[in-house]
Formats: sequence, structure tokens, C-alpha cells
Amino acid sequence: MPASQGRVLLAYSGGLDTSCILAWLIEQGYEVYAFMADVGQEEDFEAARTKALAVGAKKFFLEDLKREFVTELIYPAMQANCIYENVYLLGTSLARPVIARGMMAIADREGCDFVSHGCTGKGNDQVRFELAFYGLKPDIKVIAPWRIPEFYHRFAGRQALLAYAAEKNIPVQQTAAKPWSTDENLFHISYEAGILEDPNNTPPADMWKLTTAPEDAPNTPERITIEFERGLPVKVTVPEQSRTYTDAVEIFVALNSLARKHGIGRIDIVENRFIGVKSRGCYESPAATILRVAHMDLEGLTLDRNVRALRDQFVTIELGKILYNGHWFTPEREFIVSSIPASQRTVNGLVRLKLYKGNVVVEGRSSDEGLYDAKQSSMDELGGFEPSDTTGFIQIESIRIKKWAQANIRKGQGGVQPKDVYGSRV
Amino acid sequence: MPASQGRVLLAYSGGLDTSCILAWLIEQGYEVYAFMADVGQEEDFEAARTKALAVGAKKFFLEDLKREFVTELIYPAMQANCIYENVYLLGTSLARPVIARGMMAIADREGCDFVSHGCTGKGNDQVRFELAFYGLKPDIKVIAPWRIPEFYHRFAGRQALLAYAAEKNIPVQQTAAKPWSTDENLFHISYEAGILEDPNNTPPADMWKLTTAPEDAPNTPERITIEFERGLPVKVTVPEQSRTYTDAVEIFVALNSLARKHGIGRIDIVENRFIGVKSRGCYESPAATILRVAHMDLEGLTLDRNVRALRDQFVTIELGKILYNGHWFTPEREFIVSSIPASQRTVNGLVRLKLYKGNVVVEGRSSDEGLYDAKQSSMDELGGFEPSDTTGFIQIESIRIKKWAQANIRKGQGGVQPKDVYGSRV
Amino acid sequence: MPASQGRVLLAYSGGLDTSCILAWLIEQGYEVYAFMADVGQEEDFEAARTKALAVGAKKFFLEDLKREFVTELIYPAMQANCIYENVYLLGTSLARPVIARGMMAIADREGCDFVSHGCTGKGNDQVRFELAFYGLKPDIKVIAPWRIPEFYHRFAGRQALLAYAAEKNIPVQQTAAKPWSTDENLFHISYEAGILEDPNNTPPADMWKLTTAPEDAPNTPERITIEFERGLPVKVTVPEQSRTYTDAVEIFVALNSLARKHGIGRIDIVENRFIGVKSRGCYESPAATILRVAHMDLEGLTLDRNVRALRDQFVTIELGKILYNGHWFTPEREFIVSSIPASQRTVNGLVRLKLYKGNVVVEGRSSDEGLYDAKQSSMDELGGFEPSDTTGFIQIESIRIKKWAQANIRKGQGGVQPKDVYGSRV
Amino acid sequence: MPASQGRVLLAYSGGLDTSCILAWLIEQGYEVYAFMADVGQEEDFEAARTKALAVGAKKFFLEDLKREFVTELIYPAMQANCIYENVYLLGTSLARPVIARGMMAIADREGCDFVSHGCTGKGNDQVRFELAFYGLKPDIKVIAPWRIPEFYHRFAGRQALLAYAAEKNIPVQQTAAKPWSTDENLFHISYEAGILEDPNNTPPADMWKLTTAPEDAPNTPERITIEFERGLPVKVTVPEQSRTYTDAVEIFVALNSLARKHGIGRIDIVENRFIGVKSRGCYESPAATILRVAHMDLEGLTLDRNVRALRDQFVTIELGKILYNGHWFTPEREFIVSSIPASQRTVNGLVRLKLYKGNVVVEGRSSDEGLYDAKQSSMDELGGFEPSDTTGFIQIESIRIKKWAQANIRKGQGGVQPKDVYGSRV
Repeated sequence: MPASQGRVLLAYSGGLDTSCILAWLIEQGYEVYAFMADVGQEEDFEAARTKALAVGAKKFFLEDLKREFVTELIYPAMQANCIYENVYLLGTSLARPVIARGMMAIADREGCDFVSHGCTGKGNDQVRFELAFYGLKPDIKVIAPWRIPEFYHRFAGRQALLAYAAEKNIPVQQTAAKPWSTDENLFHISYEAGILEDPNNTPPADMWKLTTAPEDAPNTPERITIEFERGLPVKVTVPEQSRTYTDAVEIFVALNSLARKHGIGRIDIVENRFIGVKSRGCYESPAATILRVAHMDLEGLTLDRNVRALRDQFVTIELGKILYNGHWFTPEREFIVSSIPASQRTVNGLVRLKLYKGNVVVEGRSSDEGLYDAKQSSMDELGGFEPSDTTGFIQIESIRIKKWAQANIRKGQGGVQPKDVYGSRV
Repeated sequence: MPASQGRVLLAYSGGLDTSCILAWLIEQGYEVYAFMADVGQEEDFEAARTKALAVGAKKFFLEDLKREFVTELIYPAMQANCIYENVYLLGTSLARPVIARGMMAIADREGCDFVSHGCTGKGNDQVRFELAFYGLKPDIKVIAPWRIPEFYHRFAGRQALLAYAAEKNIPVQQTAAKPWSTDENLFHISYEAGILEDPNNTPPADMWKLTTAPEDAPNTPERITIEFERGLPVKVTVPEQSRTYTDAVEIFVALNSLARKHGIGRIDIVENRFIGVKSRGCYESPAATILRVAHMDLEGLTLDRNVRALRDQFVTIELGKILYNGHWFTPEREFIVSSIPASQRTVNGLVRLKLYKGNVVVEGRSSDEGLYDAKQSSMDELGGFEPSDTTGFIQIESIRIKKWAQANIRKGQGGVQPKDVYGSRV
Repeated sequence: MPASQGRVLLAYSGGLDTSCILAWLIEQGYEVYAFMADVGQEEDFEAARTKALAVGAKKFFLEDLKREFVTELIYPAMQANCIYENVYLLGTSLARPVIARGMMAIADREGCDFVSHGCTGKGNDQVRFELAFYGLKPDIKVIAPWRIPEFYHRFAGRQALLAYAAEKNIPVQQTAAKPWSTDENLFHISYEAGILEDPNNTPPADMWKLTTAPEDAPNTPERITIEFERGLPVKVTVPEQSRTYTDAVEIFVALNSLARKHGIGRIDIVENRFIGVKSRGCYESPAATILRVAHMDLEGLTLDRNVRALRDQFVTIELGKILYNGHWFTPEREFIVSSIPASQRTVNGLVRLKLYKGNVVVEGRSSDEGLYDAKQSSMDELGGFEPSDTTGFIQIESIRIKKWAQANIRKGQGGVQPKDVYGSRV
Repeated sequence: MPASQGRVLLAYSGGLDTSCILAWLIEQGYEVYAFMADVGQEEDFEAARTKALAVGAKKFFLEDLKREFVTELIYPAMQANCIYENVYLLGTSLARPVIARGMMAIADREGCDFVSHGCTGKGNDQVRFELAFYGLKPDIKVIAPWRIPEFYHRFAGRQALLAYAAEKNIPVQQTAAKPWSTDENLFHISYEAGILEDPNNTPPADMWKLTTAPEDAPNTPERITIEFERGLPVKVTVPEQSRTYTDAVEIFVALNSLARKHGIGRIDIVENRFIGVKSRGCYESPAATILRVAHMDLEGLTLDRNVRALRDQFVTIELGKILYNGHWFTPEREFIVSSIPASQRTVNGLVRLKLYKGNVVVEGRSSDEGLYDAKQSSMDELGGFEPSDTTGFIQIESIRIKKWAQANIRKGQGGVQPKDVYGSRV
């Protein structure tokens, strides 16, 4: 059958699912180009290229997006201390926009009217990919086989895919599939599905791939220092290695290696997907965990209190939601991100860390910014400070509270209250 | 001199400062009653009583406030996951309202027109105490010697206090003072001032009092389970002890002991005080750290996504500020706290934890609430879910984004964007 | 054909669309019960009953929901000053939950497995109805003909509906349809679609139904007073009528009549629908506009500053979104609404208003709450206030700002800045 | 006495208070320079200069700050729709930063170590001025006579000031003082204190200075159009005058004149001052009221929904607080303001308004931005929209809600709920 349906750029992984999708798309009459992004995952890209072309892809594109992944996505997220539901550092979410942009650039250049992917119909990634596609190229057409009934009914279960692979001469790795799914990149690896679907199942020790178990990590702590400029790491010093790292990608790689060694960055949570389904996920985010601790600590020393509070409540939370829900190429991301530079102007300085069996311990920090003044905070000297001023401060702060207390007492609702839960009358 | 100035209730600690203040108040012509609260700190209350009366206090009151500290302050803060500047669990802040309420009840009953305390003029605690006093008893008068120039100029430095103590026959402990200040209660201990004022000084190993160093903690992990009802811990099971704990105070004590053993709950930060000064503090919050991890994890399984997001952005953050700034007895606390029960109605279930060298690791969780549905989230089965519905969801979600992308492209500002920092044109 | 498909409860309006849907559902093999809610709209319910039964409905239910509409939906929204996008008072949104609950109660009692409605596939009301259905009766099945391709392709345009009505002997009003759509209830009327779709078209003068044009309103102002308890209107006094109103529904009706007379409550906006489409709407919310002005004014006198600020930022905004997006029967509504009583405990007092040609002018307000203290705010007397305390307040407030300014100056970025847009260096 | 105390720059108004302060400062041994800012208030600056020099000022400085007032303060506030407590447009707050910056520039150039002002010790302006001084020149020293006990006890009441003026040969206007205080600038006039301190007193008709009473405004509406670029007014067209205005200051003056004529921009409120005191204020903000209505309306047409919602909740509210509390020269202002440009990039277009007896009515709006699409929102055509997609959207939106409803029903807490206040079980 001629490729009468048009040209599709397929997000290809080299695995069983997307190989079958490749074959199926050809079967449906599409001309298929395969696309892979190198975002730092462990992968045999050459084998994948060979496989894609063998299955029938007309072209194969591999894009190295590691640097833009770090500098354009990870960096602003880290400056804003983004985190989802207080726990998840957003590793998969962060990679999707760079992959989607890489695909749209190829689709544009190569004249592809369609893109396709192997995301399931219940997850976040389908949403993240497709909203990113539409935010860059609103006329792109998306083929999502796992949401097309004729596809998902035909390929219900791994056996059906294996049978189809055999029929289409798609080579399949002989090793049994792991009883969970993963997504890996420079920032993290995720584990979900399979045996993890019971949230009371403890993940097996051999699941974790990017970090040593804390129990198996060295018995001796290791010290490093990280220097930040405008909230970004610019120099990591590792005395045990007698080395420093200054390149953005190299910093990430080096910190991943240190965190791996010391068992840092594992989490295991139940989270809420964008579509409203609760889902159990395990993650390893090694370098990111170290950087988060160091960055937040330095902000304590160098960032104004009110900027920090406003940034925490609005930018940190809202950008976390934007990332998780795949809203990177949207006006709200443009809006929120525009405020980050002003929040990081003073975040300059150095943090000393101890890494030990899963712990990232801050042992000290310094900065030339000058917002911290030991004399001013000291209990032992006045330091240009009149304690009597605080009396005025407290008196003024109490005006409103006294009025409220007087009203409560007048109404018989206040005073030295009866002891109750919350001390509240409501 | 007769006590012509009136009767003062003094928050007494037994230490050098408040003993000198006691003597000084008498010298100024006040009749002084001494007040101590037992909020779980390690303290020789009998020795303090003897000393206070010896220095000249007319009466001595000791109030055991541990239970109300746990149930009225710690519990709602824990249900709301309160934290200050993302790091500090608010241990000192939480104790102040119960101590202040205890004092006001005595002041009321015993006819004291004045209260006094030994807080410095640069810290948070003076504000927390006094705003709490005014919120309960708006006509109370406060004597804060460390903000009265004639006092703080006279007693500038420890030597002046020691000389005054000698003059007044105040017994002084022969041990040298520690080179930092502490505040201890059932929830935590804080360390600040002295050698900690240089934020780059690593705290000495012998400073930490409530927890073993992770390096010295057992090499074998210990497992426990915590059961929650409406967001509150109701049962802690400790297999190694063959014991369970169900009483609120006992749960706290037992978890403190477990966390101490496993090196859990230390932090070292630079924080922003209410008066706008940056200050370095170290804290140990052993039980609280375990409970926080467990509670937040269970919320993942049992709390609706949107409730969680709203609660995190508003209640968690605002109640944290209210506590830190000493605004417990205020209308805004009454307002914010009134929303907690509705947020915790479904937070029922059990969390399994591993404690190991500073780490609190969730190994599993379960609940009968039913908001998690393994079939629904499963990648392997449909589970009453039509993947094709998600296509409609994404199409509707993209309407707004496509319009924006089309406008960008029409204006030459969008499409597959040139690569720049943040991918933004702003 | 027998009613083999099951029993449907249809939200019936008496108009052309839902009459055709009624006939079509019967044609599809359903047994249809018709449901109407009286939420205060101007309507000939008896004619609708006759028509529904004539077209083939097996039963007809009319529920008077006006009182619960006022007390359970309008009241909390008014206490929270809810507004959508700063302009729209949410009149349609507020009625949907009571109508949906009325329908579910009947569906439950009468054994209907299905409900159906005549909402279009592009609007908010389909979402509001259906999410409310699912929040009350999660197993209900919804038939939304305007989203079923076979229906909307068959009935593309009014002519096709008229032809079908003729075929089915459905009586049609002889008057031409208005060139816009409306939704009316006790709270408001909305106008959208048709000639209003051009946002630059001024609505014709004869469109507005519930209010006189300001130009045609009386040339003499009218004064009224409204008394509130816990943020709710409990007594409206209208001297020109020598009357007072105290019943919730009667208060609403009386204020609607006064606002109508004086041309109060019209708006014309472009808003953002839940599905992401921008839409032009015109609204008249007569009583609601008066009550909003009065309630917000009284809050100035009686509500604590910090409670007001927190309530405005979180409850007002979030409950507005919840209402607009049809999320009434959700956990987040339960959570947000639970905080309203604590915010309104002190909102007791009386507001004096002048109504004149579209204006609602506050002429005075009073309360026994006592949070306002004329002596305290007076410039002419001290009123128990030490102005020198404010010096301490300002000194403490400036600590943080001075540190920042010093750092700016040291870095050559501050001081008496060069004049630029925003006075900012960013 | 020689000017041994140093050189003071006094914010001089020409009135009784600051003239007496001028004389008193000289009496205290200071050399005094007088400063006036022209921010658009009605004032005889030449008379003030003569008077200041006559009383003893060594120099007099008059700075015309109108343009920077409009472009650097009013404009960003207007782009952000800033409002305090939902009612007050912040006219006084907006002028303070430009006046303070003007003073600091002179103080710097002329070698003044001190500044002084005539603000009372209970109001907001003292805080706004002084925090602005410290944010620009942290070593400046402030003399605030109304907070110095020896001053405010000596000059308790107007009679004492008049006696002092007579003693110092300070000319006093023979007209009786108005029974209220005012502050006027290009943006607004405020009225407070005196007879307004009773919040139930209706302001006298002759108090209002900048606007005609609606009752006295023309009986015929007037139409104008305002064109915006990036959220700023760039062209106002007034057909009745056959004129257009394009200069920023001229636009403001022209709109003030139109609003004055049509009785637009009066408010009367009880607000919460920064120091926690409630205070009654009346304000006229003529041009600002028109611009606010027009700008917010255009945002409906041209601003993305999510950007608008985030901006409303964070920037609008937080920048309003920053302005009200005098925090302009702070890091948090720098942070918040940095996000405004990204929010206004698409706010381009034209709004048609009707002005009539206090009402500002939008009659239409248009824009080339293209985010509004009449076809897409139309009920009458499909417009590239598949209504069936919405079914998927609603199904996905309901996943979470159904789970919650099922859990409620299982626990006997949900379903078609009993009718209660708020429909809530909490």
C-alpha cells in the first residue's frame, strides 16, 4: 500500500511498543520517520536506529538535547525550587518540552503533517507531549494509537504485541520485561505500573537503578562544595576527586555520580495525575536532590524574606503545576518564568555539603551579598540595633489583635479561653 | 521597698537571665510570681522552684502543658504540614501559645497586672509571647527588660549578670555556659547564637542533644507503622519493641525515642525572623520529622488532588507564617484553622516506614478510603476507563493553547522557537 | 417501539430544543420523564407541563428550589464576595448545583438510570450539570444530544429542529426567536450568542429585561438600609415603601425590584469559559449587585484586615472558580466553604445605601462589633495610642529594606536610582 | 543658634503644620531646605516658595514629577489592576515613591543628612515615605515631629500651632480649616479625619472636589474610545471634543476632566491601615476609574485565561499590598513588577465606553490579537470544534469527582444529600 495517508514523525524508543506502532502506522498507509532524543538516558541509540529502519522507517533522527534540557528546563525549575505535591522533582515532566520541541523542529523541516507516540491513554505524558506540540505547531495532527479503540482492543496485552512483532519480523529482546515501566533521563528515572500498582508493595531492592541503597553506600561521609551565581550552580568542587566541575552538563553528571554513590535521591509516592487518577510512582533524582538542598539553603542566606515567601507561594507552586501538567509552551509559563530572574539576582554564594548514606547535610554556607549580618542577629551585642524599637513594633502589631480580643471578651467569646481543640470557638 | 508597683507574673526558666530579672523586678518595687511551663523540656523543675523562691518570688507556679501542646498546637500544625521557609518545623513557635495561655490563666486568677519574660529584643519569641498575651488579655502590661535601655545597658554582657547574681545571692551553676542558646520542648530543641552566628561554622558534634548522629546510628534499619485517623496519628506499632502506642503524648515520646536512635530530624538553616533579621538556627525535631513524612505520604493515597493543592498553597503556607510570627490568638488563625477538618476527613490509613541513619523511608501505605484505584491507574487493563476519552480532554485543554500559538505565529513570535534561555521571547 | 433503552430524566425547559430532544429520546427507545426547576425564572410552568406530556413524557416534575437556591448557594457565594474574572457574579453557575441536586433526587426516587439535557457542546453548563450529577450519583448515565454526532449533524440549525417539531406535532411559539440566548433565575439573567458574538456590537436597548436603563431610571435617588448578621442580609428597610423585608427569598425579590427600578446590575464582558474558549456575555444581576456593595462595605468596618486579605486571595478567588467550573459537589468545595463561617462571625451591622441611575452608593455604615475605633484612627487626639511606637515599627520594618539597599549600593545597583520604567534595574 | 545639628530637607506643603515644623526645626538648631513635589495637585507653588523662605528655609526646591508619576508608578499599577481591599485605587500610595525619590535625589546632591515630614504618627504616609527613604538611601536620618513626644505634646491641637505660627510670624490663611484632611495629586484626592471619622456620617456634598455629583452630571451620555498597547493607554478619542490624546500625562488630564464632568470615580470606605487601625476614607479617582474599567474589559478579550487568573491572584493582590504599605523600593516590588510585561504583551486593542452619571459602561471592544474567535464560541456553528470532544473532557474531569462520590456513598456520607446549609456534611 502506498504511503497515501501522509508522513508521520514517530517518537521512537526502540522498544516493543513503539516498534509495533511503527509497523502498524505503515500498515495504515503512513510514511514513518522515527525520532529519538538523547536526554541523557542509558540507551543504545545505534541499535535503535538499525531497528527502526529495519521495521520500515524511512528516516531516523537522533537529537542530542542534553544541554538544552539542563539549561532551558532544569535550570529555571531548580531556581524556582519546583516540586510537585511536595515530593516529586518533575524529572519526566522537565524532559518532555525539549523532546517535543526537537520533534516539532524536525516535523517542520521534514514536512511531517503527523506525529505519533507510544504513550498510554491514562498517563501524563500523552498530555505533556501533545499540549507541547500544539503550543509550538498548532496545526500538527497527532496519532495516539493507545487511545484509538481499534488499536488498543487489537493489542490488549503484551502477548498480542509479541505476536504482531513476530509477524512483522520485529526483533524482540529475549530478556523478560521488568514488572514495571521506566522513564529515564539525565535528571531522573521513574518506575511505575506492574507490581508497583499496589501502593503497599515495597519496591524490590534490584529495581533502583541510578542510586546505591543507603545501606550499601560508603560508611564514610564525603564533603563537596557548590558555588551558585544568580541561583545557578557554576562550580562544584569534589576534594576526594581533586576536581572541580563548571560546565552545566558536567556538573549534572558529576553530581549524579556522587549522589549515586551515597544513596541520595530515592522517593516512593502516590501522586495525582493530571487526568485525576491517583498513581504510585518511584523515582531516583540524584543530582537534583543535592542541588535542591544546596540551592534552598543558599536562598536562606541570600534571598530577601518577602521575595522568598512570594516566590514559594506563587512561582514554586504554579510552575510545578505547569510542568507536571505539560503546560510549558503556554502563556502562563511565559508569565510565571519571567519573574524568576528578579528572584535570583542575589542568590550568589557557596554551600558546603556532606553526603552520607542518603543524607545531604549542609555544613556551612557563605556569600558576599551582605543580607545576613551576624552582628545584627547576635544576642550578644547591639549591632546597630535598638531593642527598644521592637517595643514599638510589637505595640503596633498588637493594635489589631487587641481590638479583636476586646470584642471577643465583650461578647463573652474570648479571654483566657476554655481549653478545646485548636483553642478555637468556631 | 514595698511592692508598690504591682504584681508581676514572670516567665521563669531557672537560668541566670530570668533569675537576675526576678531580682531586678523586686528591686524595681514589684511583687513577683514565677511561672514555669512543662512542655516536655528536660528540666529540674523542683530546683527551679527552690531557686525562684530563694531569689524572692512570692509564689511559684508549674503547669504541665504537654498534652495541650500536642493536641491543640502540634496536631493541627501537623495536619496542615506546616513548615517555615520549607525547612523549619516550628517547634519553638508551637510551644509559645500554650505557655502564653498558661500564664494568662494564672495572671487572671492571681490578679497580676503585669507579665515579664527574659526574651531578647531581637528575636521572635518576645513577639510570639506578647502578641499571644494581648490576644488573650488585651489589658495585660508587659515588662520586657531586654528592651528597656536602663536594663540592657546595665547588664551588657554575661559578666554584669554574674556580678549582679553574686550581689543578690543568686546561685549560679558552676559549669561554663554553652557557646550557643537553646530552647527545648517535647517537639524539638533549637540552637542559635554564639558560635553558630557564623553561618559557615559547622555545628560541633557535641551540640546535638536529641538525636544520635546518623554516622553513629544503628547499621540495621528498623521498621514501624503509623496509623492515622482524620490526619492524626492514632496508633504506632514498633515490632522491635513488641509494642504499640495510642495515646497522643506517648506516641510523641515513642517516636522521639525512635528518631533519636536513628539520627532523624536534624536541620541547620539560615532563616528570616519576623523582625526582618536573618538568623542561623539549628534544630532537632525527631518525632515531628517522622510524622511529617508519614502524614504527607498518606495524603498522597487518601486526599483529593485539588484539596491538597489548595491546602498546600494556602493553609500550609499561611498557618506556617501565623505560627512563626506569633499570631496564634488572632482572627486569621481562627479563620485558617477552621478549614483543616474538612481537609483531613479522608486522611485515614496506615503507613509503613523504615528508619535508617537519618532517613525516613516509606515502604508502603494502605487505606480503606478508596480514592486510589489500582485498576484505574493501571497501564495493563482498562479498568472502567476509556482511553479515547482522553483525546477529548486533550483537545479541549489545547483550545486555548492553540489560539495562543496561532497568534504567536501570526505575529512572528512563535512556532518552533529559536532556542534561548527558558524558550521564552520575553 | 417499547422503552427498551431505559428511563431518562430530561431537564426540560419547554422550548424548542428540549422538546425536540424529548421526542428524539422517545424515538431512540427511552422512556422519558421531564423535569423542571423553579429557580425564580419567569416561566409558564403549566404550559410546559402540558407540552411535555403532549410530546410524550411519561411524567412531569416541577420542583420549587428558590429557597435553597438563595440560602445554600447564593448566600455562601455572597458571604465570600465571589466573582469571576472580577466582573461576573456567577448567576447561572449558582443555580446549576440546586437544579442538578433536584434532578438527582428525582432520578433516584423514580428509578431513572439516565439523565439528559439540552446544553450545547461548547458551553459551561453541560460541564456544570454533569459534574454535579457525578458528584451526587456517580453511576448516573448522561445523554447529551448536542454532543452526539448523529444528533448534532441531523439537527444542524434551527430549521431542522422546526421541521422535526412539525413532524412530531410539537407546538412552536409563533414569535421569532430572539437573536441571542438567555438563562434566567432569581439571581440574574444572562444573554449570549447570536448578535452578541461580535464583542464590538453594543447590545440593543430592548435586550435588557431585568433592569431599567440608567438613563430611564428615576431622577431622584432612593435610600435603603440593609442589616447583616454573620455576613448575611437579615433585614432590608425601604422607607419609600414604608416596608421592611426579613425573609431570605423576599429580601432577594425586593432588592431585585429596587435595582430594576434604578438601573442597577448590568454588565457586558468577554469571559473565559471552562473549556478555554473566550465568549461574550451580558448579564443583569440586580439584587446581587446591591448586596455585594453593601456586604463588602460592611466588611471594611467589621472584618479583621488579615482575615479579609486571606479570604480575598483564597476563598473569594477559589470559590469563584469552583462555581464557574461546576465543581460544587467536590471535595475542594467542601474544603473551601468550611472556612466561610469563621470569616463572617464579626460581619454584623447596618449599611445605608443610595440607589440612583445605575449607582449603588454607600452613605454610611454602623456596627456594634467594635473593631473600628474613631479615637484610635483620629488625627486629632491620641486615643490611647503612642505615636512614638510607630517609630519603632518603622525601624523594625526597615531593617530588611536597609540591608537590601546597602547591598544594592555596594554593588552599584541601588541608591537614588536613575529614572527608568518601574524604577527597576531588572 | 547656629545650625549645629545639621541640614534637613523638609517635605513642605505650604500649610500650617509643615510651616510650624520648619520653624521648629530651625529652633532645634537645624539648617532647613524646603522641598515640594508637583504631582499634579492644585497648589500655588510660588506662594509656598515665598512662605518657606520667609519662615526661614535656606533653599526651596520644586520638582515636577508628574510624568514619572504617571509612567513609572501609575502605569504598572494600572497594568496590574491594582486595588486595595477591592475598592481603593491607591492614589496617595502611588505618589509617595516618586516624591520620596525626588527628595532623596535632592538630599544626596545638597548634602542633607536628615529629612523631615509632617505626617501624623497614626497614618500610612509616614511609613510609605520613610520606607522609601531607607530603600533608596539607607543611611538617611528621619525627623518625624508628630512622633516626637516633646513636639506632639507641645502642639496638641490646632490652637497651639496657630499660637506658634503667630509667634514665628508665619502667615496663616484666614479661611477656617475644612473639617477633614485631604491629599491631592494627578490621580486622585483623598478625604479623611474630622467629621468623616464617624463612618456613619454621609460626606457633605460640598466636600467632593474633583467630580460633579452624578445627580448634577449631564443628562446625556458621552462616548469615548481608548486604545491600549501592551496594557497601556496610547490614544483616547473624544468625539464631542473632536480630539484625540496620545501623551501619557495629557491622557490622564483629559480623562480626569471627562470623569469629573460625568460624576465618575467617587468612593467612601472603611479601610485597614498598615499599622492595623481601621480608618474611614473618601476618594475621588476620576481618570483612574475609567482606565480601570477599560483595561480590565480589554483583558477579557485579549489576555489568556490562565495568565489572567494567576496575575489576579498574585500580582494584582500583592502589588496592591506593596503599594499600600509603602514597599515600593524593596526586593519584593522588584520581583513582582518584573512579571508585568509578560502579562501585558497581548493586551492590545480598543475599548468603546459610555460615560453617564457615575457609570462607565463598556459598549464594545476590538483587537487584532485573535484570542477571541466568534466562530469557536458560537452556539450556531461548529467552528472547527468537535462537541464530542467535550464528552471526553467531562469524563476525565469527573474521574476524581466520581471516586470521591463513591467513597462518600460507601461511608453513608454522600449521594443525594440531605438539604442543609452549603449542602455540606462538615
